[in-house]
Amino acid sequence: MAEKARKSGVTFRPHFKTHQSTRIAEWFRDEGVEKITVSSADMADQFAGAGWHDITIAFPANPLEIKAYNRLSRNITLNLIIDSIELLHYLQKNLHHAVGLFVEIDCGYGRSGIPFEDQKRIDHILHSCRTSEKYHFKGFLTHAGNTYHANSKDEIRQIYNDSIHELRRLKEGFLHVFPELIISTGDTPSCSIVEDLSKADEIRPGNFVYFDLMQLELGACTFGDIAVSVACPVTGIYPKRNEILIHGGAVHLSKEYLAKNGKLFGLVVQLSENGWSQAIPGTILTSISQEHGIISTRPEFLQNIKHGDLLGIIPVHSCLTANLLKDSMRII
Amino acid sequence: MAEKARKSGVTFRPHFKTHQSTRIAEWFRDEGVEKITVSSADMADQFAGAGWHDITIAFPANPLEIKAYNRLSRNITLNLIIDSIELLHYLQKNLHHAVGLFVEIDCGYGRSGIPFEDQKRIDHILHSCRTSEKYHFKGFLTHAGNTYHANSKDEIRQIYNDSIHELRRLKEGFLHVFPELIISTGDTPSCSIVEDLSKADEIRPGNFVYFDLMQLELGACTFGDIAVSVACPVTGIYPKRNEILIHGGAVHLSKEYLAKNGKLFGLVVQLSENGWSQAIPGTILTSISQEHGIISTRPEFLQNIKHGDLLGIIPVHSCLTANLLKDSMRII
Repeated sequence: MAEKARKSGVTFRPHFKTHQSTRIAEWFRDEGVEKITVSSADMADQFAGAGWHDITIAFPANPLEIKAYNRLSRNITLNLIIDSIELLHYLQKNLHHAVGLFVEIDCGYGRSGIPFEDQKRIDHILHSCRTSEKYHFKGFLTHAGNTYHANSKDEIRQIYNDSIHELRRLKEGFLHVFPELIISTGDTPSCSIVEDLSKADEIRPGNFVYFDLMQLELGACTFGDIAVSVACPVTGIYPKRNEILIHGGAVHLSKEYLAKNGKLFGLVVQLSENGWSQAIPGTILTSISQEHGIISTRPEFLQNIKHGDLLGIIPVHSCLTANLLKDSMRII
Repeated sequence: MAEKARKSGVTFRPHFKTHQSTRIAEWFRDEGVEKITVSSADMADQFAGAGWHDITIAFPANPLEIKAYNRLSRNITLNLIIDSIELLHYLQKNLHHAVGLFVEIDCGYGRSGIPFEDQKRIDHILHSCRTSEKYHFKGFLTHAGNTYHANSKDEIRQIYNDSIHELRRLKEGFLHVFPELIISTGDTPSCSIVEDLSKADEIRPGNFVYFDLMQLELGACTFGDIAVSVACPVTGIYPKRNEILIHGGAVHLSKEYLAKNGKLFGLVVQLSENGWSQAIPGTILTSISQEHGIISTRPEFLQNIKHGDLLGIIPVHSCLTANLLKDSMRII
């Protein structure tokens, strides 16, 4: 991803919410990364404490976090995102130190941000941005999370192109007032599938650090690209129903699933000292409760399994899995 | 629940996996509870450290946890559950101190346990139980988790009655060999809906300590019985689509949902100093990602909301929510 960003001439500001690990963060430093993205003030505190000095909190700014913003912005370059004039006024009144501000644009995902077509609100908020010394407007930011619902790589490219088109239109409209303004984008599906990202100025993908089955399903990675598995002990063997019980449930993997003739909560691999096998054929995690996971498999795999074996589970959503298990992560 | 157990003349061994709180555990002591259930060796360690001396780990015993079992059973009465002869042999060989053993019976849920109709395997495992000084057989245990898929209270009663019927049949068959053997049951839907639990010897419900929307849906509780909500800041207001963004996502609530004309991830309440309101009409949490939650509502509610307000979310599955947020819990 760092290489693609360099080739495209865009700033690489990776999202650290997936790994939340100061140790993995160092690998990014080795690639020349100095600017990062996080999803909460708590995470900003964590990485500021680990020596990161330019952090964007890519979640709409929250008045209840003002103390954290003021504490952080005293020491680092802090960027906040907003999508309302009310919040801009609040920040104007309550910030103690200058922060960078991104205006979030909703390019069709429908989660947060000002809808790209609402020129009136965009004009209004940017007009106010001009007049303050509490913040400097940095540009337009979007998260095209609708790529996660796409049915093909072409559809992902289309979502990316459409959102970049709208952001560039906005950029061109305001460049005479804010000559330094940038556009920041960066869901993992787009950043993985689109080859040339040069129409953006900054990308913020996060999930790609591990990838997962959801990204595999979208065509954003290969199975071999997936860099996380969860080691789960076998605690039950049921030959009559060709099922295996593992200690691996919603508190380890989350309840995220793929809809595939029923629900798929993970694929199963054999673990080795330095990695894992291909997915075991005909073998899927079909059901999970708080601590239990049920693997449906074939007799030829089941007959070689015994209690206490460790099976690897490739998760559907690595961000949620890593959030649950980050304290017990082992890097191999 | 303590009152119902007393009236029914059954031992109340509550499951502590829902709250995982040594402070809430003390409330149970006030009700005379001395025996508890947990779902992992880690949790057993936690509560043994808080002075609980009789703990059942209601998850099939795991050879990889043998050190924890030997450490725990040196100091407390530890009960393990098994559903295979291989594991019995393993425990016979590797345990240092006597533990209590429950044989798990699958009464139709299909997750773990020996199927109730597999008399041959049940005979085999109980025959081996007789000969050891490393463990003493305590009885038959089941978790009738299929009540969670029931469509009516009557169906829950039926599942409960069927499973108790099979457990009592087994009990009667082995009482001459193990005169002290008990049957242990206890999913929250059954224990909440069935009035007379006297046909069991021990109950192990856990979720009832908070209840949640899933239990409400099953008829196991009223809305007023639900004892947990998550305070989530408003960080976006979208009048055109009648939606509110909250900082409340999968890392706070889990991805558990109810299928209700789409997915329902929570209901919304107004928080007060000592509790919360009824559910706000026409207002539901319809979508969540890692940190974001989207509430769909009506104009009359939305127009009074501002950035930084706290809304309460009543979770679908309180066990998973409490697991994610236990470190920030506040008791009111």
